[in-house]
Amino acid sequence: MKTRIRLTIEYDGSHYHGFQIQENGLTVQEVLEKAIFKLTGERIGLLGAGRTDSGVHALGQVAAFDSSSSIPGERWKMALNSVIPGDIRVIESCTTHPQFNPRFDALSKRYIYLIYRPVRGSTFFRHYALCSSEPLNLAAMQAAAGFLVGSHNFRAFCASGSSAKTFERRVIKCVVEEKEPFIRLDIEGEGFLYNMVRIIMGTLMEVGRGKYPPTWISEVLESRDRSRAGPTAPPQGLYLVRVTYARDNWTS
Amino acid sequence: MKTRIRLTIEYDGSHYHGFQIQENGLTVQEVLEKAIFKLTGERIGLLGAGRTDSGVHALGQVAAFDSSSSIPGERWKMALNSVIPGDIRVIESCTTHPQFNPRFDALSKRYIYLIYRPVRGSTFFRHYALCSSEPLNLAAMQAAAGFLVGSHNFRAFCASGSSAKTFERRVIKCVVEEKEPFIRLDIEGEGFLYNMVRIIMGTLMEVGRGKYPPTWISEVLESRDRSRAGPTAPPQGLYLVRVTYARDNWTS
Repeated sequence: MKTRIRLTIEYDGSHYHGFQIQENGLTVQEVLEKAIFKLTGERIGLLGAGRTDSGVHALGQVAAFDSSSSIPGERWKMALNSVIPGDIRVIESCTTHPQFNPRFDALSKRYIYLIYRPVRGSTFFRHYALCSSEPLNLAAMQAAAGFLVGSHNFRAFCASGSSAKTFERRVIKCVVEEKEPFIRLDIEGEGFLYNMVRIIMGTLMEVGRGKYPPTWISEVLESRDRSRAGPTAPPQGLYLVRVTYARDNWTS
Repeated sequence: MKTRIRLTIEYDGSHYHGFQIQENGLTVQEVLEKAIFKLTGERIGLLGAGRTDSGVHALGQVAAFDSSSSIPGERWKMALNSVIPGDIRVIESCTTHPQFNPRFDALSKRYIYLIYRPVRGSTFFRHYALCSSEPLNLAAMQAAAGFLVGSHNFRAFCASGSSAKTFERRVIKCVVEEKEPFIRLDIEGEGFLYNMVRIIMGTLMEVGRGKYPPTWISEVLESRDRSRAGPTAPPQGLYLVRVTYARDNWTS
Protein backbone atom coordinates (compact mmCIF):
# COMPACT_ATOMS: atom_id res chain seq x y z
CA MET A 1 0.00 0.00 0.00
CA LYS A 2 1.70 3.15 -1.21
CA THR A 3 1.26 6.59 0.25
CA ARG A 4 1.97 9.83 -1.59
CA ILE A 5 4.22 12.13 0.42
CA ARG A 6 4.46 15.84 -0.20
CA LEU A 7 7.62 17.78 0.64
CA THR A 8 8.25 21.51 0.86
CA ILE A 9 11.94 22.12 0.26
CA GLU A 10 14.32 25.00 0.76
CA TYR A 11 17.65 24.86 -1.04
CA ASP A 12 20.75 26.86 -1.70
CA GLY A 13 21.16 26.14 -5.40
CA SER A 14 24.74 27.47 -5.58
CA HIS A 15 26.32 24.06 -5.96
CA TYR A 16 23.56 22.24 -7.86
CA HIS A 17 22.74 21.93 -11.52
CA GLY A 18 19.15 22.87 -10.79
CA PHE A 19 16.33 20.80 -9.36
CA GLN A 20 15.62 18.27 -12.06
CA ILE A 21 17.84 15.26 -12.65
CA GLN A 22 20.26 15.54 -15.53
CA GLU A 23 23.32 13.70 -16.68
CA ASN A 24 26.03 16.31 -16.41
CA GLY A 25 25.83 17.43 -12.81
CA LEU A 26 24.39 16.88 -9.36
CA THR A 27 20.80 18.07 -8.89
CA VAL A 28 18.53 18.55 -5.89
CA GLN A 29 16.20 15.83 -7.16
CA GLU A 30 19.05 13.30 -7.33
CA VAL A 31 20.11 14.09 -3.75
CA LEU A 32 16.55 13.58 -2.50
CA GLU A 33 15.94 10.38 -4.48
CA LYS A 34 19.19 8.89 -3.17
CA ALA A 35 18.24 9.92 0.37
CA ILE A 36 14.86 8.18 0.07
CA PHE A 37 16.64 5.08 -1.25
CA LYS A 38 18.99 5.21 1.71
CA LEU A 39 16.10 5.45 4.17
CA THR A 40 13.74 2.89 2.63
CA GLY A 41 15.49 1.01 -0.18
CA GLU A 42 12.86 2.37 -2.56
CA ARG A 43 13.82 3.76 -5.95
CA ILE A 44 11.26 6.48 -6.44
CA GLY A 45 10.74 9.17 -9.07
CA LEU A 46 10.34 12.51 -7.36
CA LEU A 47 7.88 14.93 -8.99
CA GLY A 48 8.76 18.62 -8.56
CA ALA A 49 6.59 21.72 -8.94
CA GLY A 50 9.14 23.41 -11.12
CA ARG A 51 12.56 22.97 -12.57
CA THR A 52 14.92 25.57 -11.30
CA ASP A 53 18.06 26.37 -13.26
CA SER A 54 21.60 25.78 -12.12
CA GLY A 55 22.39 28.24 -9.32
CA VAL A 56 18.75 29.21 -8.70
CA HIS A 57 17.49 28.89 -5.11
CA ALA A 58 14.24 27.83 -3.51
CA LEU A 59 12.50 28.79 -0.30
CA GLY A 60 9.44 26.70 -1.06
CA GLN A 61 9.89 24.15 -3.84
CA VAL A 62 7.21 21.44 -3.61
CA ALA A 63 7.78 17.80 -4.54
CA ALA A 64 5.95 14.49 -4.12
CA PHE A 65 6.67 10.78 -4.28
CA ASP A 66 5.05 7.44 -3.41
CA SER A 67 6.40 5.25 -0.66
CA SER A 68 5.44 1.91 0.90
CA SER A 69 7.51 2.70 3.98
CA SER A 70 5.94 3.00 7.42
CA ILE A 71 7.50 6.46 7.97
CA PRO A 72 4.56 8.77 8.85
CA GLY A 73 4.12 11.77 6.53
CA GLU A 74 5.25 14.41 9.01
CA ARG A 75 8.34 12.35 9.99
CA TRP A 76 9.85 12.47 6.52
CA LYS A 77 11.09 15.99 7.22
CA MET A 78 13.38 14.88 10.02
CA ALA A 79 14.30 11.58 8.37
CA LEU A 80 15.42 13.23 5.13
CA ASN A 81 17.16 16.15 6.83
CA SER A 82 19.30 13.66 8.76
CA VAL A 83 20.77 12.22 5.55
CA ILE A 84 20.93 15.16 3.10
CA PRO A 85 23.52 17.96 3.05
CA GLY A 86 22.87 21.27 4.83
CA ASP A 87 22.24 23.20 1.63
CA ILE A 88 18.97 21.32 1.10
CA ARG A 89 16.38 21.33 3.90
CA VAL A 90 12.95 19.77 3.93
CA ILE A 91 10.89 22.37 5.77
CA GLU A 92 7.59 20.48 5.75
CA SER A 93 6.40 16.97 4.94
CA CYS A 94 2.95 15.41 4.97
CA THR A 95 0.81 12.69 3.49
CA THR A 96 -1.11 13.90 0.48
CA HIS A 97 -3.81 12.84 -1.96
CA PRO A 98 -2.69 9.89 -4.19
CA GLN A 99 -3.27 11.99 -7.33
CA PHE A 100 -1.51 15.13 -6.08
CA ASN A 101 0.81 16.44 -8.80
CA PRO A 102 3.08 19.27 -7.63
CA ARG A 103 3.49 20.61 -11.13
CA PHE A 104 0.05 20.35 -12.71
CA ASP A 105 -1.95 21.10 -9.57
CA ALA A 106 -0.08 24.35 -8.91
CA LEU A 107 -2.35 27.40 -9.15
CA SER A 108 0.50 29.87 -9.02
CA LYS A 109 4.19 30.26 -8.33
CA ARG A 110 5.91 33.17 -6.70
CA TYR A 111 9.51 34.12 -7.42
CA ILE A 112 11.77 36.78 -6.01
CA TYR A 113 14.83 38.20 -7.75
CA LEU A 114 17.39 40.09 -5.65
CA ILE A 115 19.77 42.78 -6.84
CA TYR A 116 22.31 43.60 -4.12
CA ARG A 117 23.45 47.22 -4.06
CA PRO A 118 26.91 46.80 -2.62
CA VAL A 119 28.41 49.19 -0.17
CA ARG A 120 30.55 46.41 1.12
CA GLY A 121 29.99 42.72 1.70
CA SER A 122 29.25 41.72 -1.88
CA THR A 123 31.59 38.76 -1.39
CA PHE A 124 28.85 37.27 0.76
CA PHE A 125 26.13 37.75 -1.81
CA ARG A 126 28.02 36.46 -4.86
CA HIS A 127 25.90 33.28 -4.90
CA TYR A 128 22.71 34.88 -3.55
CA ALA A 129 22.01 38.03 -5.56
CA LEU A 130 23.03 39.95 -8.65
CA CYS A 131 25.59 42.38 -7.20
CA SER A 132 25.42 45.69 -9.01
CA SER A 133 26.21 49.23 -7.98
CA GLU A 134 25.25 50.80 -11.33
CA PRO A 135 22.65 53.59 -11.02
CA LEU A 136 19.12 52.21 -11.48
CA ASN A 137 15.98 54.32 -11.66
CA LEU A 138 13.68 52.48 -9.28
CA ALA A 139 10.52 54.43 -10.18
CA ALA A 140 11.02 53.64 -13.86
CA MET A 141 11.48 49.93 -13.11
CA GLN A 142 8.36 49.96 -10.95
CA ALA A 143 6.31 51.57 -13.71
CA ALA A 144 7.64 49.12 -16.30
CA ALA A 145 6.86 46.12 -14.05
CA GLY A 146 3.20 47.17 -13.96
CA PHE A 147 2.84 46.58 -17.71
CA LEU A 148 3.53 42.86 -17.24
CA VAL A 149 0.59 42.17 -14.93
CA GLY A 150 -2.29 40.33 -16.59
CA SER A 151 -2.58 37.74 -19.36
CA HIS A 152 -0.10 38.31 -22.16
CA ASN A 153 1.80 36.43 -24.79
CA PHE A 154 5.24 36.30 -23.14
CA ARG A 155 7.12 34.87 -26.11
CA ALA A 156 9.53 37.82 -26.02
CA PHE A 157 10.40 36.79 -22.46
CA CYS A 158 10.99 33.11 -23.19
CA ALA A 159 14.42 31.61 -23.85
CA SER A 160 14.76 30.41 -27.41
CA GLY A 161 14.73 26.65 -27.63
CA SER A 162 11.84 26.35 -25.20
CA SER A 163 9.44 23.49 -25.91
CA ALA A 164 6.43 25.50 -24.69
CA LYS A 165 3.31 25.00 -26.81
CA THR A 166 1.67 28.28 -25.87
CA PHE A 167 3.23 31.53 -24.71
CA GLU A 168 0.13 32.94 -23.06
CA ARG A 169 0.70 33.29 -19.33
CA ARG A 170 -1.03 35.23 -16.58
CA VAL A 171 1.07 37.33 -14.22
CA ILE A 172 -0.86 38.05 -11.00
CA LYS A 173 1.67 40.31 -9.33
CA CYS A 174 4.83 42.03 -10.57
CA VAL A 175 6.35 44.54 -8.20
CA VAL A 176 9.81 46.10 -7.90
CA GLU A 177 10.64 47.25 -4.37
CA GLU A 178 13.61 48.70 -2.58
CA LYS A 179 14.42 46.56 0.46
CA GLU A 180 17.79 47.94 1.45
CA PRO A 181 20.42 46.83 0.63
CA PHE A 182 18.43 45.08 -2.11
CA ILE A 183 16.23 45.93 -5.05
CA ARG A 184 13.73 43.11 -5.22
CA LEU A 185 11.46 41.89 -8.01
CA ASP A 186 8.47 40.04 -6.55
CA ILE A 187 6.53 38.21 -9.22
CA GLU A 188 3.67 35.74 -9.01
CA GLY A 189 2.06 34.03 -11.97
CA GLU A 190 -0.07 31.07 -12.93
CA GLY A 191 2.83 29.73 -14.92
CA PHE A 192 6.19 30.79 -16.27
CA LEU A 193 8.06 30.14 -19.48
CA TYR A 194 11.66 29.00 -19.55
CA ASN A 195 13.91 31.77 -18.12
CA MET A 196 10.92 34.14 -18.05
CA VAL A 197 11.64 35.72 -14.66
CA ARG A 198 15.33 36.19 -15.44
CA ILE A 199 14.56 37.79 -18.83
CA ILE A 200 11.96 40.06 -17.18
CA MET A 201 14.58 41.10 -14.64
CA GLY A 202 17.17 41.75 -17.35
CA THR A 203 14.62 43.80 -19.28
CA LEU A 204 13.52 45.82 -16.24
CA MET A 205 17.18 46.63 -15.60
CA GLU A 206 17.48 48.13 -19.10
CA VAL A 207 14.63 50.46 -18.11
CA GLY A 208 16.34 51.14 -14.76
CA ARG A 209 19.50 52.16 -16.65
CA GLY A 210 17.46 54.69 -18.62
CA LYS A 211 18.11 53.00 -21.96
CA TYR A 212 14.36 52.79 -22.60
CA PRO A 213 11.25 54.36 -21.03
CA PRO A 214 8.88 52.16 -18.94
CA THR A 215 6.37 51.96 -21.81
CA TRP A 216 9.00 50.18 -23.92
CA ILE A 217 8.19 46.97 -22.03
CA SER A 218 4.74 46.96 -23.71
CA GLU A 219 6.40 47.17 -27.10
CA VAL A 220 8.67 44.27 -26.20
CA LEU A 221 5.65 42.20 -25.09
CA GLU A 222 3.80 42.98 -28.31
CA SER A 223 6.81 42.16 -30.48
CA ARG A 224 6.80 38.52 -29.25
CA ASP A 225 10.46 38.65 -30.20
CA ARG A 226 13.08 37.47 -27.69
CA SER A 227 15.73 39.64 -29.33
CA ARG A 228 13.78 42.78 -28.39
CA ALA A 229 13.90 42.07 -24.63
CA GLY A 230 16.86 42.62 -22.33
CA PRO A 231 19.51 40.03 -21.44
CA THR A 232 18.79 37.07 -19.15
CA ALA A 233 19.71 38.12 -15.61
CA PRO A 234 22.12 35.66 -13.91
CA PRO A 235 20.65 32.74 -11.94
CA GLN A 236 22.03 33.48 -8.46
CA GLY A 237 19.51 36.28 -7.76
CA LEU A 238 16.47 34.06 -8.32
CA TYR A 239 14.42 32.31 -5.62
CA LEU A 240 11.35 30.11 -6.05
CA VAL A 241 9.50 31.36 -2.98
CA ARG A 242 6.16 29.61 -2.94
CA VAL A 243 3.91 27.31 -4.93
CA THR A 244 0.19 27.70 -4.23
CA TYR A 245 -2.34 24.87 -4.53
CA ALA A 246 -6.12 24.86 -4.39
CA ARG A 247 -6.31 23.00 -1.11
CA ASP A 248 -3.16 24.13 0.57
CA ASN A 249 -3.28 21.43 3.21
CA TRP A 250 -3.31 17.99 1.66
CA THR A 251 -2.71 16.16 4.89
CA SER A 252 -4.97 13.11 4.92
CA MET B 1 63.75 49.21 -3.48
CA LYS B 2 60.85 47.66 -1.60
CA THR B 3 57.50 49.28 -0.99
CA ARG B 4 55.11 48.28 1.77
CA ILE B 5 51.62 47.65 0.45
CA ARG B 6 48.56 47.72 2.62
CA LEU B 7 45.46 45.68 1.72
CA THR B 8 41.93 45.82 3.10
CA ILE B 9 40.32 42.45 2.53
CA GLU B 10 36.81 41.05 2.65
CA TYR B 11 36.39 37.29 2.82
CA ASP B 12 33.81 34.61 3.19
CA GLY B 13 35.61 32.36 5.65
CA SER B 14 33.28 29.38 5.14
CA HIS B 15 35.79 27.32 3.25
CA TYR B 16 39.02 28.52 4.88
CA HIS B 17 40.90 27.42 7.96
CA GLY B 18 41.07 31.00 9.14
CA PHE B 19 43.34 33.81 8.03
CA GLN B 20 46.76 32.74 9.23
CA ILE B 21 48.80 30.07 7.46
CA GLN B 22 48.73 26.65 9.03
CA GLU B 23 49.67 23.17 7.94
CA ASN B 24 46.36 21.35 8.00
CA GLY B 25 44.18 23.44 5.75
CA LEU B 26 43.90 26.26 3.24
CA THR B 27 43.96 29.76 4.71
CA VAL B 28 43.28 33.23 3.36
CA GLN B 29 46.92 34.22 3.93
CA GLU B 30 48.15 31.30 1.82
CA VAL B 31 45.82 32.23 -1.04
CA LEU B 32 47.08 35.82 -1.01
CA GLU B 33 50.75 34.91 -0.72
CA LYS B 34 50.44 32.51 -3.66
CA ALA B 35 48.61 35.19 -5.67
CA ILE B 36 51.42 37.69 -5.02
CA PHE B 37 53.96 35.05 -6.09
CA LYS B 38 51.96 34.47 -9.25
CA LEU B 39 51.91 38.19 -10.04
CA THR B 40 55.50 39.09 -9.17
CA GLY B 41 57.48 35.94 -8.45
CA GLU B 42 58.10 37.28 -4.94
CA ARG B 43 57.77 35.01 -1.92
CA ILE B 44 56.48 37.42 0.69
CA GLY B 45 55.29 36.99 4.26
CA LEU B 46 51.92 38.68 4.63
CA LEU B 47 51.28 40.39 7.96
CA GLY B 48 47.62 40.38 9.08
CA ALA B 49 45.85 42.55 11.65
CA GLY B 50 44.26 39.57 13.29
CA ARG B 51 43.95 35.83 12.99
CA THR B 52 40.41 34.82 12.36
CA ASP B 53 39.30 31.27 13.17
CA SER B 54 38.17 28.69 10.69
CA GLY B 55 34.75 29.72 9.35
CA VAL B 56 34.99 33.32 10.64
CA HIS B 57 34.43 36.08 8.06
CA ALA B 58 35.91 39.51 7.44
CA LEU B 59 34.56 42.71 5.97
CA GLY B 60 37.71 44.65 6.70
CA GLN B 61 40.76 42.55 7.51
CA VAL B 62 43.95 44.54 7.03
CA ALA B 63 47.24 43.05 5.82
CA ALA B 64 50.59 44.33 4.58
CA PHE B 65 53.60 43.08 2.66
CA ASP B 66 56.75 44.37 0.97
CA SER B 67 57.20 44.20 -2.76
CA SER B 68 59.85 45.26 -5.25
CA SER B 69 57.36 45.09 -8.08
CA SER B 70 56.42 48.13 -10.13
CA ILE B 71 52.69 47.59 -9.50
CA PRO B 72 51.41 50.90 -8.03
CA GLY B 73 49.78 50.63 -4.58
CA GLU B 74 46.24 51.25 -5.72
CA ARG B 75 46.56 48.74 -8.61
CA TRP B 76 47.17 45.78 -6.32
CA LYS B 77 43.44 45.59 -5.65
CA MET B 78 42.59 44.78 -9.27
CA ALA B 79 45.72 42.70 -9.84
CA LEU B 80 45.05 40.43 -6.87
CA ASN B 81 41.31 40.17 -7.48
CA SER B 82 42.02 38.89 -10.97
CA VAL B 83 43.90 35.86 -9.62
CA ILE B 84 42.16 34.98 -6.33
CA PRO B 85 38.83 33.15 -5.88
CA GLY B 86 35.55 35.08 -5.47
CA ASP B 87 35.24 34.37 -1.76
CA ILE B 88 38.23 36.66 -1.07
CA ARG B 89 38.15 40.24 -2.37
CA VAL B 90 40.69 42.99 -1.90
CA ILE B 91 38.49 46.04 -1.37
CA GLU B 92 41.31 48.57 -1.06
CA SER B 93 45.05 48.69 -1.66
CA CYS B 94 47.60 51.43 -1.18
CA THR B 95 51.25 52.16 -0.51
CA THR B 96 51.95 52.55 3.19
CA HIS B 97 54.69 53.53 5.61
CA PRO B 98 57.63 51.05 5.58
CA GLN B 99 57.14 50.36 9.29
CA PHE B 100 53.37 49.93 9.17
CA ASN B 101 52.40 46.80 11.12
CA PRO B 102 48.73 45.85 10.71
CA ARG B 103 48.66 43.99 14.01
CA PHE B 104 50.68 46.16 16.37
CA ASP B 105 49.60 49.51 14.97
CA ALA B 106 45.90 48.70 15.31
CA LEU B 107 44.15 51.02 17.77
CA SER B 108 40.97 49.01 17.83
CA LYS B 109 39.08 46.21 16.12
CA ARG B 110 35.38 45.97 15.58
CA TYR B 111 33.55 42.65 15.31
CA ILE B 112 29.94 41.80 14.63
CA TYR B 113 28.25 38.54 15.60
CA LEU B 114 24.98 37.63 13.88
CA ILE B 115 22.23 35.41 15.26
CA TYR B 116 19.65 34.67 12.57
CA ARG B 117 16.11 34.26 13.86
CA PRO B 118 14.72 31.90 11.26
CA VAL B 119 11.25 32.17 9.90
CA ARG B 120 12.44 30.52 6.74
CA GLY B 121 15.62 30.69 4.76
CA SER B 122 18.02 29.45 7.40
CA THR B 123 19.59 27.22 4.74
CA PHE B 124 21.06 30.39 3.29
CA PHE B 125 22.54 31.58 6.57
CA ARG B 126 24.07 28.28 7.70
CA HIS B 127 27.58 29.61 6.96
CA TYR B 128 26.84 33.26 7.80
CA ALA B 129 25.08 33.36 11.17
CA LEU B 130 24.18 31.30 14.19
CA CYS B 131 20.65 30.16 13.27
CA SER B 132 18.50 29.94 16.37
CA SER B 133 14.78 30.28 16.94
CA GLU B 134 14.97 29.75 20.71
CA PRO B 135 13.37 32.55 22.74
CA LEU B 136 15.97 35.16 23.73
CA ASN B 137 15.32 38.11 26.02
CA LEU B 138 16.86 40.97 24.06
CA ALA B 139 16.61 43.57 26.86
CA ALA B 140 18.44 41.23 29.25
CA MET B 141 21.20 40.61 26.70
CA GLN B 142 21.51 44.37 26.12
CA ALA B 143 21.83 45.04 29.84
CA ALA B 144 24.40 42.27 30.26
CA ALA B 145 26.47 43.58 27.32
CA GLY B 146 26.82 46.93 29.07
CA PHE B 147 28.80 45.35 31.91
CA LEU B 148 31.58 44.41 29.51
CA VAL B 149 32.40 47.97 28.41
CA GLY B 150 35.60 49.37 29.89
CA SER B 151 38.92 47.89 30.98
CA HIS B 152 38.56 44.48 32.57
CA ASN B 153 40.45 41.28 33.11
CA PHE B 154 38.77 39.10 30.47
CA ARG B 155 40.42 35.81 31.48
CA ALA B 156 36.95 34.23 31.95
CA PHE B 157 36.29 35.05 28.29
CA CYS B 158 39.52 33.62 26.91
CA ALA B 159 39.84 30.11 25.47
CA SER B 160 42.02 27.90 27.64
CA GLY B 161 45.38 27.24 26.01
CA SER B 162 45.79 30.87 25.01
CA SER B 163 49.34 32.17 25.07
CA ALA B 164 48.23 35.65 26.15
CA LYS B 165 50.55 37.25 28.71
CA THR B 166 47.94 39.61 30.13
CA PHE B 167 44.17 39.34 30.17
CA GLU B 168 43.44 43.01 30.65
CA ARG B 169 41.60 44.36 27.62
CA ARG B 170 39.57 47.49 27.00
CA VAL B 171 36.17 47.15 25.33
CA ILE B 172 35.07 50.48 23.82
CA LYS B 173 31.62 49.45 22.64
CA CYS B 174 29.49 46.38 23.30
CA VAL B 175 25.92 46.61 22.06
CA VAL B 176 23.25 44.01 21.32
CA GLU B 177 20.70 45.16 18.75
CA GLU B 178 17.77 43.68 16.92
CA LYS B 179 18.23 44.13 13.18
CA GLU B 180 15.48 41.91 11.84
CA PRO B 181 15.83 39.07 11.03
CA PHE B 182 19.03 39.19 13.09
CA ILE B 183 20.12 39.81 16.63
CA ARG B 184 23.50 41.46 16.32
CA LEU B 185 26.34 41.89 18.77
CA ASP B 186 28.46 44.89 17.82
CA ILE B 187 31.70 44.99 19.79
CA GLU B 188 34.77 47.17 19.48
CA GLY B 189 37.85 46.86 21.60
CA GLU B 190 41.51 47.79 21.73
CA GLY B 191 42.35 44.12 21.62
CA PHE B 192 40.75 40.74 22.00
CA LEU B 193 41.81 37.48 23.59
CA TYR B 194 41.55 34.16 21.80
CA ASN B 195 37.85 33.34 21.16
CA MET B 196 36.83 36.32 23.31
CA VAL B 197 34.00 37.57 21.10
CA ARG B 198 32.56 34.09 20.61
CA ILE B 199 32.66 33.37 24.36
CA ILE B 200 31.04 36.76 25.06
CA MET B 201 28.29 35.88 22.59
CA GLY B 202 27.79 32.42 24.13
CA THR B 203 27.60 34.01 27.58
CA LEU B 204 25.15 36.73 26.50
CA MET B 205 22.94 33.99 25.06
CA GLU B 206 22.78 32.29 28.46
CA VAL B 207 21.44 35.58 29.82
CA GLY B 208 19.04 35.80 26.87
CA ARG B 209 17.71 32.34 27.71
CA GLY B 210 16.96 33.54 31.24
CA LYS B 211 19.38 31.11 32.85
CA TYR B 212 21.11 34.00 34.61
CA PRO B 213 20.30 37.69 35.24
CA PRO B 214 22.28 40.39 33.38
CA THR B 215 24.37 41.15 36.49
CA TRP B 216 25.73 37.58 36.38
CA ILE B 217 28.10 38.69 33.63
CA SER B 218 29.93 40.86 36.20
CA GLU B 219 30.38 37.83 38.42
CA VAL B 220 31.76 35.87 35.48
CA LEU B 221 34.22 38.70 34.71
CA GLU B 222 35.36 38.87 38.33
CA SER B 223 35.78 35.09 38.58
CA ARG B 224 38.49 35.14 35.87
CA ASP B 225 37.42 31.53 35.35
CA ARG B 226 36.63 30.29 31.83
CA SER B 227 34.40 27.56 33.22
CA ARG B 228 32.04 30.16 34.69
CA ALA B 229 31.26 31.77 31.31
CA GLY B 230 28.93 30.39 28.65
CA PRO B 231 29.91 28.16 25.73
CA THR B 232 31.90 29.44 22.75
CA ALA B 233 29.41 30.51 20.08
CA PRO B 234 30.08 28.89 16.68
CA PRO B 235 32.42 30.67 14.23
CA GLN B 236 30.04 31.25 11.31
CA GLY B 237 28.26 34.19 12.99
CA LEU B 238 31.46 36.21 13.47
CA TYR B 239 32.74 39.01 11.22
CA LEU B 240 35.86 41.14 11.62
CA VAL B 241 34.33 44.40 10.43
CA ARG B 242 37.02 47.01 10.78
CA VAL B 243 40.50 47.65 12.09
CA THR B 244 41.23 51.24 13.07
CA TYR B 245 44.67 52.86 12.87
CA ALA B 246 45.97 56.18 14.13
CA ARG B 247 46.50 57.61 10.69
CA ASP B 248 43.83 55.89 8.72
CA ASN B 249 45.25 56.89 5.38
CA TRP B 250 48.78 55.63 4.96
CA THR B 251 48.97 56.39 1.28
CA SER B 252 52.39 57.84 0.57
